[in-house]
Amino acid sequence: MDSRCTSGEFGVIASLRRRLGGGRRGVHGIGDDAVLLHRSDGRVVCTDTMVEGVHFRLDWSSPADVGWKLIAANVSDLWACGAEPRAWTLSMSVPSHCEPLAGLASRLADGVEEALQAFGVEAHLVGGDTTTSPSSLVLSVCMVGAVPEGRFLTRGGACAGDGIWLSGEPGWAAAGLHLLLSGGGAFEGVAARRALDAHRRPHPVRVPGSALVAGRVHAAIDLSDGLSSDLWHVALASEAALHVDRALLEAEALHEVPGATEELVERWLLGGGDDHVMAVVSADAPGPDWRRVGEVTRVGEADLILRDRGGNRRRLEPGGHRHF
Amino acid sequence: MDSRCTSGEFGVIASLRRRLGGGRRGVHGIGDDAVLLHRSDGRVVCTDTMVEGVHFRLDWSSPADVGWKLIAANVSDLWACGAEPRAWTLSMSVPSHCEPLAGLASRLADGVEEALQAFGVEAHLVGGDTTTSPSSLVLSVCMVGAVPEGRFLTRGGACAGDGIWLSGEPGWAAAGLHLLLSGGGAFEGVAARRALDAHRRPHPVRVPGSALVAGRVHAAIDLSDGLSSDLWHVALASEAALHVDRALLEAEALHEVPGATEELVERWLLGGGDDHVMAVVSADAPGPDWRRVGEVTRVGEADLILRDRGGNRRRLEPGGHRHF
Repeated sequence: MDSRCTSGEFGVIASLRRRLGGGRRGVHGIGDDAVLLHRSDGRVVCTDTMVEGVHFRLDWSSPADVGWKLIAANVSDLWACGAEPRAWTLSMSVPSHCEPLAGLASRLADGVEEALQAFGVEAHLVGGDTTTSPSSLVLSVCMVGAVPEGRFLTRGGACAGDGIWLSGEPGWAAAGLHLLLSGGGAFEGVAARRALDAHRRPHPVRVPGSALVAGRVHAAIDLSDGLSSDLWHVALASEAALHVDRALLEAEALHEVPGATEELVERWLLGGGDDHVMAVVSADAPGPDWRRVGEVTRVGEADLILRDRGGNRRRLEPGGHRHF
Repeated sequence: MDSRCTSGEFGVIASLRRRLGGGRRGVHGIGDDAVLLHRSDGRVVCTDTMVEGVHFRLDWSSPADVGWKLIAANVSDLWACGAEPRAWTLSMSVPSHCEPLAGLASRLADGVEEALQAFGVEAHLVGGDTTTSPSSLVLSVCMVGAVPEGRFLTRGGACAGDGIWLSGEPGWAAAGLHLLLSGGGAFEGVAARRALDAHRRPHPVRVPGSALVAGRVHAAIDLSDGLSSDLWHVALASEAALHVDRALLEAEALHEVPGATEELVERWLLGGGDDHVMAVVSADAPGPDWRRVGEVTRVGEADLILRDRGGNRRRLEPGGHRHF
């Protein structure tokens, strides 16, 4: 079990992109959740990998839960770019403790089907690769989507005066992970069940098509690494200063999760990944259920500021999501 | 270290495809090396994963070798469908013994660049995902290519009277793996060096464009699982009987690999994977350097027969590539 993020992940990705990315010829959105291969044909590609012992444990999540989460992560990446999933490939590296493969695959497929139905997505498995693995189950999906011309969303594009809007409350998946890690079995009650469900079966959310058509959404990202890390991606890509209000962000119900403290709730809210809550930067509300949590104060230089309840401001650091 | 293939891999893939493949609507080539997403736009997708301890060992291959091999496997899959690589994503699951990540990534990129240049391929990295891994380095590439309309090649389509042609001599990568496994250090001499190089840095081969344009190539597959397994894929997809001549297949030089026996050479030739020799079923030679090793005797029922030097025939079983 590993408690680190890969050290310097962002720098390494940037370096690989410089060497192997080919100067972005015809390609848009490198470094975003997904990539538009070519403007003219609207094909968008993303990839997301889940590793047993890093992103999930099979004593905490069923294989169906894992299948659900794998689809959720990739669908969310495409939705964050305004694209609709169409096809996907699956690479499975399977250790001996997951044998027989047929049983694992069937239960994974159950979760995949349930997720696709729940999300209203029609995307077909078109290929894959199956190998053995010495110790951990590793599942990697590459998903291909379609976006209408001119509607591809990136993390750049935030304008001064835009609001920062969330599709839901972040921190629940991190709270669920905390419950599982604490291992006390305190899994009763509405808040505990909601937290465990958010960890096992996250529900990504589309940026509404009406908001995309109106062109009022200027940037988007799904909260997979944690609010502070992910909003830093937007700040850097947009070269904009983002201010977030702690009072608008916080959902009181998170305090009802067994064992919650002020410090834990703050950590879940700002650093908890895997929620796949969608964050958009938009001139107005993308839809009726979206919550405004802050605004873009100026463009020109990247910054991310948290205003606490007392009106004090502090810079948020790009903490990065820590897997267990 | 695991010596098994995933049990029942082919059946599991077929089952997943039935449940999640969506009845092939608009999609062609599912189950082939790569998949044509839609006839009209010619986008082709493949994925190939390499696992430390299963497909490579870092004491036997440098990170640059691993980068080369990862690109070779995916390029070969696209070439087997007549497609030219254009873009790719990379998922890396990195264990602590591969830290620092920046050093590993830089050396991987060296091998990737060398491979792309050697193969004459211009395909750009467009995205990826980096995670930690509890024990093994796992690298998964999804590659997107382009194929002109009507030129997508599958494993089906073999016609009675067609020849079976290989782009090179199979078995060398398996011989190299044998040398490394035997661990005797008998790595001197031309044959040993060729075998080790085939294991570490395989050279896939394009189906020549002139042969594709002429429409004389009816099926293709790259030998990644081993000749007997891969030609069975063609036999089944084409519902055709394929006959292979042992005398035409065998390259005497394989006997010069240190420790080679008759039995080992046969195993390398028929069951050795990872060579990425291209096999095509074609009315005539795809190009000057291709070797005819057999023919399609009839269509209607799948079969794969080996004729030995004495003229005796025996059915080849779909052995499947055994990783170490």
